[in-house]
Amino acid sequence: MSRNITLEQAENIIEACKVEANSIGQPMNIAVVDDSANLVAFVAMDDTKLIGADISQKKALTAVYFQTDTRELVPLVQPGAALYGIESTTGGRLVVFAGGVLLRTSDGTIAGAVGVSAGTVDEDHQVAEAGRKAFVG
Amino acid sequence: MSRNITLEQAENIIEACKVEANSIGQPMNIAVVDDSANLVAFVAMDDTKLIGADISQKKALTAVYFQTDTRELVPLVQPGAALYGIESTTGGRLVVFAGGVLLRTSDGTIAGAVGVSAGTVDEDHQVAEAGRKAFVG
Amino acid sequence: MSRNITLEQAENIIEACKVEANSIGQPMNIAVVDDSANLVAFVAMDDTKLIGADISQKKALTAVYFQTDTRELVPLVQPGAALYGIESTTGGRLVVFAGGVLLRTSDGTIAGAVGVSAGTVDEDHQVAEAGRKAFVG
Amino acid sequence: MSRNITLEQAENIIEACKVEANSIGQPMNIAVVDDSANLVAFVAMDDTKLIGADISQKKALTAVYFQTDTRELVPLVQPGAALYGIESTTGGRLVVFAGGVLLRTSDGTIAGAVGVSAGTVDEDHQVAEAGRKAFVG
Repeated sequence: MSRNITLEQAENIIEACKVEANSIGQPMNIAVVDDSANLVAFVAMDDTKLIGADISQKKALTAVYFQTDTRELVPLVQPGAALYGIESTTGGRLVVFAGGVLLRTSDGTIAGAVGVSAGTVDEDHQVAEAGRKAFVG
Repeated sequence: MSRNITLEQAENIIEACKVEANSIGQPMNIAVVDDSANLVAFVAMDDTKLIGADISQKKALTAVYFQTDTRELVPLVQPGAALYGIESTTGGRLVVFAGGVLLRTSDGTIAGAVGVSAGTVDEDHQVAEAGRKAFVG
Repeated sequence: MSRNITLEQAENIIEACKVEANSIGQPMNIAVVDDSANLVAFVAMDDTKLIGADISQKKALTAVYFQTDTRELVPLVQPGAALYGIESTTGGRLVVFAGGVLLRTSDGTIAGAVGVSAGTVDEDHQVAEAGRKAFVG
Repeated sequence: MSRNITLEQAENIIEACKVEANSIGQPMNIAVVDDSANLVAFVAMDDTKLIGADISQKKALTAVYFQTDTRELVPLVQPGAALYGIESTTGGRLVVFAGGVLLRTSDGTIAGAVGVSAGTVDEDHQVAEAGRKAFVG
């Protein structure tokens, strides 16, 4: 299998996320997946929260599955909105709040995603975004 | 086991769905199930979203299980409504928004369902509806 | 997401499998997955066995996950052999007997797999093999 | 939560495993868990097998859960042996063959485990062992 993202690229992304997480003083769980949501690399920073190991991976998966950042799903899954109830499907693997960001190569092809979890959803997104900026695909 | 829908019928339905999906420029996941919600045929069109592989099959299952199009469930599952929370049951196999349509034979017997996923819920329903129109049971 | 296998290629594979299945009089479940084991196309031939819908998809997944035909796993998973007990892992998604065959492009890259189920394991493999021969990647 | 293993230690272990994996020409999935089997770090080397992402993590978990290297379980789980069938328990999270090794601090306290998967079981163990040697806890 050839991936649209290499381990080296994933490690660079994680490194950038760690720098950002340290800068805000929030140790994070950080997951990078490929364009089919297969896990490429993961780290749990010291003193992070256990919940984030699972959630960070699922945020990355969700971004790939929907081809969008997970925070874009927030309005769509509220009561009365178009995708209300969707998080019950797909074997409980979807996360419908912020912290998963999509990675695209320079030509727009989906390369994978970064998922971050342990802080507030805004912090999670901010740290994931730092990872995205570090990606040169 | 004899089904109320043949593979040839299912393939015709999928063909009609593909034509409709192409006409609106949205590559779809399309699933056809029989009257017990067993999968008869499935296709993932090129460049579709991964989320739709699971969701399209579950939309078709949900239509058969409730004997109705899935969009009819939307008002029933909202907070305060009669079936609020139902999507958590059945092992997460229910989808409670549009895109699953019920197939009936000319005498009204349930033959199966079509589930479509990857576009907006309205697009999904539209493409599934094209499949239903192609069904002569 | 771009796949190493198109829907048209998957449909050609399934067509070849159906011809082979008809030639031996055994209606089959036939699944084609991409190189990350995402489902691309599936058919259940009329009068096939229900067990095969699940098993055919898992055979294809297993071939991709192990980068080999599933029948190669048979000696490895027997009592006392190297991978004894492996089928309990991976959420019950592995099938460790014949019927899943790996698809490679002409340059050797993994493109996906075909999984077939409903006959004897030899029949399943034979029908999957017919699909592989029809694949020009 | 404080762990008996830091992320930096886990990353050193993974680095040593990668060197060993490269030396034998087998790209691996490598997982490091803490003394409660929580995932600390994971990498999938380029061109590895997808099966190993799940299995490597479960090998590490199994080593921690049993407080032993996973290859020690092999004779115990064979037909007629004391733990026959145990891999079906624990939600399918146990791997009962080689490739998971236990990490202990210098005073003998369990610190976590390394799990490796994608090669033969002997290769997997060898690469995990290289990670253990790199651990100074």
